[in-house]
Amino acid sequence: MNQRDNPKPTDSPQSGSDQAHVVFTPSGKRGDFPFGTPVLDAARKLGVDLDSVCGGRGICGRCQILCSEGEFSKHGITSTQAHLTAYAEVEERYERIKGAMKTGRRLGCQAKLQGDVVIDVPEDSQVHRQVIRKAADHVDVKLDPTVRLYYVEVEQPDMHDPSGDLRRLKKALATEWGLDNLDCESNLFGNLQKILREGEWKATVAVYDPAARTADQTETSDNLTAYDKPRIISVWPGFHDRIYGVAIDVGSTTIAAHLCSLTDGEVLASSGAMNPQIRFGEDLMSRVSYVMMNPGGDTEMTNAVREAINELLVVVCTEVASTVEGHEQASINDILDLTFVANPVMHHLLLGIDPVELGGAPFALAFDESASLRAAEMGIAANLNARAYVLPCIAGHVGADTAGVMLAEQPHLLDDISLLVDVGTNAEIVLGNRERMVACSSPTGPAFEGAQISGGQRAAPGAIERIRIDPETLEPKFSVIGSELWSNDEGFEESVNNIGVTGICGSGIIEAIAEMFLAGIIDTDGVIDGAMAAKSERILADGRTFSYLLHDGDVRIIISQNDVRQIQLAKAALYAGVKLLMDRLGIEKVQRIRLAGAFGSHIDVKYAMVLGLIPDCVLEQVTSAGNAAGNGARIALMNANSRREVESLVHNVEKIETAVEPKFQEHFVLAMAFPHKSDEFTELGKVVNLPERKSTSDAGRERSRKSRRRKRAG
Amino acid sequence: MNQRDNPKPTDSPQSGSDQAHVVFTPSGKRGDFPFGTPVLDAARKLGVDLDSVCGGRGICGRCQILCSEGEFSKHGITSTQAHLTAYAEVEERYERIKGAMKTGRRLGCQAKLQGDVVIDVPEDSQVHRQVIRKAADHVDVKLDPTVRLYYVEVEQPDMHDPSGDLRRLKKALATEWGLDNLDCESNLFGNLQKILREGEWKATVAVYDPAARTADQTETSDNLTAYDKPRIISVWPGFHDRIYGVAIDVGSTTIAAHLCSLTDGEVLASSGAMNPQIRFGEDLMSRVSYVMMNPGGDTEMTNAVREAINELLVVVCTEVASTVEGHEQASINDILDLTFVANPVMHHLLLGIDPVELGGAPFALAFDESASLRAAEMGIAANLNARAYVLPCIAGHVGADTAGVMLAEQPHLLDDISLLVDVGTNAEIVLGNRERMVACSSPTGPAFEGAQISGGQRAAPGAIERIRIDPETLEPKFSVIGSELWSNDEGFEESVNNIGVTGICGSGIIEAIAEMFLAGIIDTDGVIDGAMAAKSERILADGRTFSYLLHDGDVRIIISQNDVRQIQLAKAALYAGVKLLMDRLGIEKVQRIRLAGAFGSHIDVKYAMVLGLIPDCVLEQVTSAGNAAGNGARIALMNANSRREVESLVHNVEKIETAVEPKFQEHFVLAMAFPHKSDEFTELGKVVNLPERKSTSDAGRERSRKSRRRKRAG
Repeated sequence: MNQRDNPKPTDSPQSGSDQAHVVFTPSGKRGDFPFGTPVLDAARKLGVDLDSVCGGRGICGRCQILCSEGEFSKHGITSTQAHLTAYAEVEERYERIKGAMKTGRRLGCQAKLQGDVVIDVPEDSQVHRQVIRKAADHVDVKLDPTVRLYYVEVEQPDMHDPSGDLRRLKKALATEWGLDNLDCESNLFGNLQKILREGEWKATVAVYDPAARTADQTETSDNLTAYDKPRIISVWPGFHDRIYGVAIDVGSTTIAAHLCSLTDGEVLASSGAMNPQIRFGEDLMSRVSYVMMNPGGDTEMTNAVREAINELLVVVCTEVASTVEGHEQASINDILDLTFVANPVMHHLLLGIDPVELGGAPFALAFDESASLRAAEMGIAANLNARAYVLPCIAGHVGADTAGVMLAEQPHLLDDISLLVDVGTNAEIVLGNRERMVACSSPTGPAFEGAQISGGQRAAPGAIERIRIDPETLEPKFSVIGSELWSNDEGFEESVNNIGVTGICGSGIIEAIAEMFLAGIIDTDGVIDGAMAAKSERILADGRTFSYLLHDGDVRIIISQNDVRQIQLAKAALYAGVKLLMDRLGIEKVQRIRLAGAFGSHIDVKYAMVLGLIPDCVLEQVTSAGNAAGNGARIALMNANSRREVESLVHNVEKIETAVEPKFQEHFVLAMAFPHKSDEFTELGKVVNLPERKSTSDAGRERSRKSRRRKRAG
Repeated sequence: MNQRDNPKPTDSPQSGSDQAHVVFTPSGKRGDFPFGTPVLDAARKLGVDLDSVCGGRGICGRCQILCSEGEFSKHGITSTQAHLTAYAEVEERYERIKGAMKTGRRLGCQAKLQGDVVIDVPEDSQVHRQVIRKAADHVDVKLDPTVRLYYVEVEQPDMHDPSGDLRRLKKALATEWGLDNLDCESNLFGNLQKILREGEWKATVAVYDPAARTADQTETSDNLTAYDKPRIISVWPGFHDRIYGVAIDVGSTTIAAHLCSLTDGEVLASSGAMNPQIRFGEDLMSRVSYVMMNPGGDTEMTNAVREAINELLVVVCTEVASTVEGHEQASINDILDLTFVANPVMHHLLLGIDPVELGGAPFALAFDESASLRAAEMGIAANLNARAYVLPCIAGHVGADTAGVMLAEQPHLLDDISLLVDVGTNAEIVLGNRERMVACSSPTGPAFEGAQISGGQRAAPGAIERIRIDPETLEPKFSVIGSELWSNDEGFEESVNNIGVTGICGSGIIEAIAEMFLAGIIDTDGVIDGAMAAKSERILADGRTFSYLLHDGDVRIIISQNDVRQIQLAKAALYAGVKLLMDRLGIEKVQRIRLAGAFGSHIDVKYAMVLGLIPDCVLEQVTSAGNAAGNGARIALMNANSRREVESLVHNVEKIETAVEPKFQEHFVLAMAFPHKSDEFTELGKVVNLPERKSTSDAGRERSRKSRRRKRAG
């Protein structure tokens, strides 16, 4: 019913004018508009964040709103009056065809103001909806991708105005969307005329704008960058409403890909694959060596990782049909943006750069900036004009993956000092707060990943991951990946029938050694105490040293003295790196520790602290950051401004090369020992009954000093 | 001799200070600098246009200057004093190795001020030297390409400052050349580290800056455009001083390429090739038809023209070794910029755009803007990151070639009204002056190119190109392409022995018909007068019409009544187009006519006016514009600002589609007749004895009216 046709009593608030007062929630923005103004128009004029791709033509359904009538006190309106025009035919059609209108909602472009109203813009109708909550409090990631869709109706050519089709398309984008001064990728020229005619002069355009940013986010880059012009990167006939981005974490071992909707920010599908470069070398340095030994080997590895990524893209595009209800398979051609994180060697190989310079001092990166290019230039098979953004590496050993961790964890926004640790063959370490950030890499070696450990293996079914040792009997119990049970639980044997007990993974070896230490099998200097053999048959003589028999099955799993040494070397390197950064900041204690990556997810932080991998900290403040590097890639995908943020972060973080810091060796040697009650691990002491310093410790110190001299001589 | 070591009398001008006064010619810029300041530094500080690629290291030799000592009156200096430091070792080495120092010159980077001097900067030492003189008076094209070389010395990597190699390269470019905020093509990442190390941390960088412009040229674009960031597009180890650009004119029949040095603006080699698209159709419309009949035919033609261009690039790179003394073959990899002009169909096919829309109303261009892209995106085999700039088309029938003509001829800078005509299958016509410009295309058909004429052929050896007819005897004499002699000269037969007399070319048919008209063989309505048969046996009866026998050799060449009609139709179309534009500007007369292209170069303008191809004009003001389209491409190659200029010109010219202008038909019909004394061709009347209007002309008008009715009905 159209109110304007009804005579209204003079005391009606509308009687004085043909203006409706509208209040939008949650923004609180308000204003007066003539009757008949579509809600979408009112929202735009007030700067209310209400989405629309079709420009108010009732096609896209993104401008859905809720109208609270009669709850509006200003003019004392009652709910009996219709303050919006009646449900329109366009809305009925949209509802019928798409079936996607939630109960009680209206299309903002169709519902027109007929009286004072409160309009609620649901989260999913906001352009800049929150898509990722960052770890740091109060920092959300709002949807603001570099690629967006715009639906337009284009003027037809006219002999009296012989302008080109592209000019008229641009004119429509300028008139309907305020997009001026757009470039157009030249490979679109060829099909543009066919597309416009096929769509009967209606088209959807994807525009890439590297400078896209939300109005409410501040510029964090200290070097204000000039940007390339925004450009048209894809055109579809008629209305097109699905475009995707993919966030990719290229690890040495695995590659993970997350397919996200660029229109609503949802993660639609995630998948992982082994990095096929493994056939050229298990770890980073063996891959660099491969290139040194095999000219052209870098190209082989570049091709291998790119092929694997291309296969992953097909996988996630296919998977979305099963992971998201009502969603068909995604088209590769609709992938328009990709973001990448990787360690320096993976980063270089991904971009087609020979990594040999990273294999030796001075460990020079080819470049330490972000890379923004067409994905096709990286050999990535997405839309021909899909964009790729590769986060910047920090230094020769501190990669774009750590940059991603920083972006996800936001240590630079906190007063508390955060320690971020990402453990791999190298531990990449970041320390600091809003005032100052420092970063380094520490050569932990592969022990934390289960390599160079006698029974070590990757974290896979059959690997021992949890261990407890009875301090009285020295008898162990353990659990393996693939079974929920402890080894002394009933039914354990059956539960591992198919997988077996095959080895011990990185987090397992840490628990094993920590429990051995807590049980007194190992002293603070890491020596397996042969005297314990009297107490348990699990202490085995092994030449001049001793081992601990953890499991005696098809595979015999022992913890040897050498295994303990490997872990000591690894943890000493990690701790020395952390101490170096703490020295640099002049601090004695950190307030918050975040362990990133698979290692961080699996490790029991208590044991990490028992072994002294990480410095003393209130245990509740030591947590896993999950897949923080991958989250960083997702943030960069979803929010253009975050790219400036990570570039600024990486630029400003102080990079420390442990190889040229004399204090590193000193910290390293001192960190070989395990903490005891008189050490600085006071927070740890509150939860764990650490051993007292034993008499052997003096001998241990002596050994440490010898070790230091050996290292310096070597 | 170092003056500073000599005690100077107190009346010496230098005694009061250690400052030298320097005056640069021809700029007249002057200033005072401390003794010991290199001339190059002084020039830079004063903004004197003195070239340098190596940044003052005595490598490039571009900063050569002449020093006029003792001619400097201000302080009464005599020539006995040395006002510059002595010839330096670096200069001797440069002279010895390169042998390229002209007599009396010094290297501005090595010669240091020791007293007051006048320094002359020769034209070839100026960065912005004049490279092309445009047709319009006082408008020169200064060298200011979009791609330039910069030699730098890069800091080596240092573990205490783990910045990437690219960052340190950029830092050198910023410090030494003031180039900030550069992007880098991502395909350079892979080799950057090797190049820097190979050059021992010295490198030459090519930077593409689309916004490059000389300080003394004003911004002519009315829409100030935002530009993409300048970017590094190539890096060579050590010093590299040769880079090239190629200006290419893609004609329907031939493709012409001019290899130019981007460092000094010289044209080094030019070559041409047949457009291989001819196998798909002789003229434009038959090529468009080919695409309509053969799906994918556009791709075939795109590939064909691109391959031909790639072959031409090899040809000009090879030829430079023979055309320029002391120059070796140019490397394809050193071609860093290319510019293109082409008619609309060639333009679209070159860019990979299906041209079918240009084959029918409303003749919509895919786009009417300039295209700036990587040449590789066009399938052009130059440097991987070479740039390509394609001048904008004006309308569906008025191409980028005409845009090139406008850029070269500069009609928009004159008060006089210029008429620019480029004749092909269509005549592309531009008319106007600084106040207003209009353009159209007129369907002349191929008669002017010798097609659809009984004895017609292309302008090639053996083709008759000059004709004179004795008005008394009606006997002709003619000359053919490939011989200097007239047909009645002694030795003519021998001179054409090898080439024969094979046909008549476009300019020949025009002369033949004009001479027939002036001899009274044809009346003003174009009818060959049968009564003339009584006077000469060369007038042959041909059914109900008559012909004129021009040559009776191995090939019998006649001018038939139909030939006259074809030329009448063509010239009427051309003239009608011109009249339409004159109507639009409200003018009766043009001050200046420039005929572009091969037709314009070969035609005798007097005969063109006798036939009424072009409007009345002072004959001296009717000239050939030579290869104006190609010149336009060269200008766009040499001067970045000229690209903005041509974009602005094309944007502002008023485009008129003759097909929808009713007046066009009217002008067309009226223009069928040949001019006679009572016509408006007053200037022509001063030099040619035009016939009086004959009684047959009334019948002619009647035929014209009938023709008009037929056309309108058809």
